[in-house]
Amino acid sequence: MRNIKLIIEYDGTNYYGWQKQPHQATIQETLEDSIRKVTKEKIDIIGSGRTDKGVHARGQVANFFTDSKIPGEKFKDAINSSLPEDIAINYSEEVDSSFHSRYNAQGKEYRYLIYNRREPSPLLRNLAYHVPQKLDYGSMQKAIGHIIGTHDFRAFMASGSSVKDTTRTIYNVHLDKNGELIEFRINGSGFLYNMVRIIAGTLVDIGTGKIDNSYLSEIILSKDRKNAGHTAPPHGLYLERVLY
Amino acid sequence: MRNIKLIIEYDGTNYYGWQKQPHQATIQETLEDSIRKVTKEKIDIIGSGRTDKGVHARGQVANFFTDSKIPGEKFKDAINSSLPEDIAINYSEEVDSSFHSRYNAQGKEYRYLIYNRREPSPLLRNLAYHVPQKLDYGSMQKAIGHIIGTHDFRAFMASGSSVKDTTRTIYNVHLDKNGELIEFRINGSGFLYNMVRIIAGTLVDIGTGKIDNSYLSEIILSKDRKNAGHTAPPHGLYLERVLY
Repeated sequence: MRNIKLIIEYDGTNYYGWQKQPHQATIQETLEDSIRKVTKEKIDIIGSGRTDKGVHARGQVANFFTDSKIPGEKFKDAINSSLPEDIAINYSEEVDSSFHSRYNAQGKEYRYLIYNRREPSPLLRNLAYHVPQKLDYGSMQKAIGHIIGTHDFRAFMASGSSVKDTTRTIYNVHLDKNGELIEFRINGSGFLYNMVRIIAGTLVDIGTGKIDNSYLSEIILSKDRKNAGHTAPPHGLYLERVLY
Repeated sequence: MRNIKLIIEYDGTNYYGWQKQPHQATIQETLEDSIRKVTKEKIDIIGSGRTDKGVHARGQVANFFTDSKIPGEKFKDAINSSLPEDIAINYSEEVDSSFHSRYNAQGKEYRYLIYNRREPSPLLRNLAYHVPQKLDYGSMQKAIGHIIGTHDFRAFMASGSSVKDTTRTIYNVHLDKNGELIEFRINGSGFLYNMVRIIAGTLVDIGTGKIDNSYLSEIILSKDRKNAGHTAPPHGLYLERVLY
C-alpha cells in the first residue's frame, strides 16, 4: 500500500476538535469522508496529534494508506474538491511506508493570538483571544525567556492529565506586537495537554500584573498547576507546523 | 433630542448588507434592535452609506437621535452587551444635533484583501479574496498611481447604476504585500457603486497579465465598464473609516 502525507489547514470554530467521536463533527472524520470519496476505500488517517474544539491549524500533518493510483501531489486538489470550506489540504505527497505522522514528529510549533483592545473585535472573534485589560507587553517580553530549555512543565499541564514524563524541551519562543494584536510563537519537542494555552494565559496574567514576570521560573520549578495562570481559550491557538 | 454618533465594526459574512430590508438579517436592523433595548425608544439609525452583503467594516459610522439620559460614551458598552458577536461598537459620543453620518461625510477609506496562494485558506475564507493564479505584484504596484486624482470613474461603476455625476477624487492608494496577503487601501471623496471591488478586480486582472498595467488610465478615460476588469467578491472588502 502507498503512504500519503498531508499538510492541512483548518478553521476549528465549527468542529469538536481533531479526534473522531460519535455524533460530533470532527476534523478527522470530515477528512476521512472526503478521502473516501476520492479513493473509494475505507480510509483511516493518522494525525500528528489532537487539537481541541475551537483550535485552528495552519500546518497539521496526517498520513493514510491507500491502494489508489492517484499521484501523491494530486491528492491535494482531489481531496480539496470534496472538503468543506473550513478545511483544506495545502500539500500532499507520497512518503515511505515507515512514515507515521505522530511517532515520527520531532516537535511542533504553535502560535497564540491575543487581541488587546477594550472593545471586542467582530472580525477576530473566533481567531484571537480578546483581552480588554491593558497588557504590559514589555513585562510579557521579559518573561518568555524563562520558558526556553528543557524543563519539567507539569505546572503547565491541565490538571487530571495522566502523562508521567512531563519534561519537554522548548527550542524557541517569540512574542510580537502589531497594533492591537499580540502574537506568541512557541516551538518545542512536544507539549503537554493544554500546555500552550496555560503558558499563553500565564503570559496574559503577567501582562495584566496579576503575576510578576520574574516569577515564571519559580512557577516552572514548583511543578504545581495552581501557581500558573489561567488557561487561555482555544480559539486563539493555531498548530503552525509539525517538525520531522 | 440628543444626537449619538457610533463607530462600528462588523463581520459582514452572515448579513444581507447594511441596509434594512424585509425578511433578511441586516447590520442596520440588528443595530436598531439592540439600541432599542438600551433606550426603550423607537430608533432609526443613519449610516454613512450602505455596505453590500458579505462586506465588512472596521469603521462604519452611524448616528441616531434619542431622549435617553445615558452619557454618549457609555452607549458603546450598553449597546455591545446586546449585540451579537459579529457586530460591535468601537466608539460612541454625543455630537451636535446638526451632525449627519451620510451628508457630512467628506470621504471614505476602504481596504481590499487578496489572498494569493494556489490553495484556498480555510482561516481567511470569508476575510480575503482567494486568487490562485500567480500575481505580478510589481505590475499591480505600477498601475495604482493612475487611480489617484479627480477622474470620471464611470468605467468602474456597476452597470445599471443611475448616478449622474460619476466624477470622484481619490486622495491616496496603497498596495502592500505581506507573505501571501496583498492589501489594497484606497481613500477618496466618495465611491460609485461597486467601485472599489471593480478597481480591485482590475488590479487582479493586471496581476495575472489579463490587462496591461499601462492600460489603466485608458480604462478610466474610456468611461466604459466593459474595459475594466471583473468585480472582485464582497468578502475581501472592508470599510475602514469615514472621513468628516
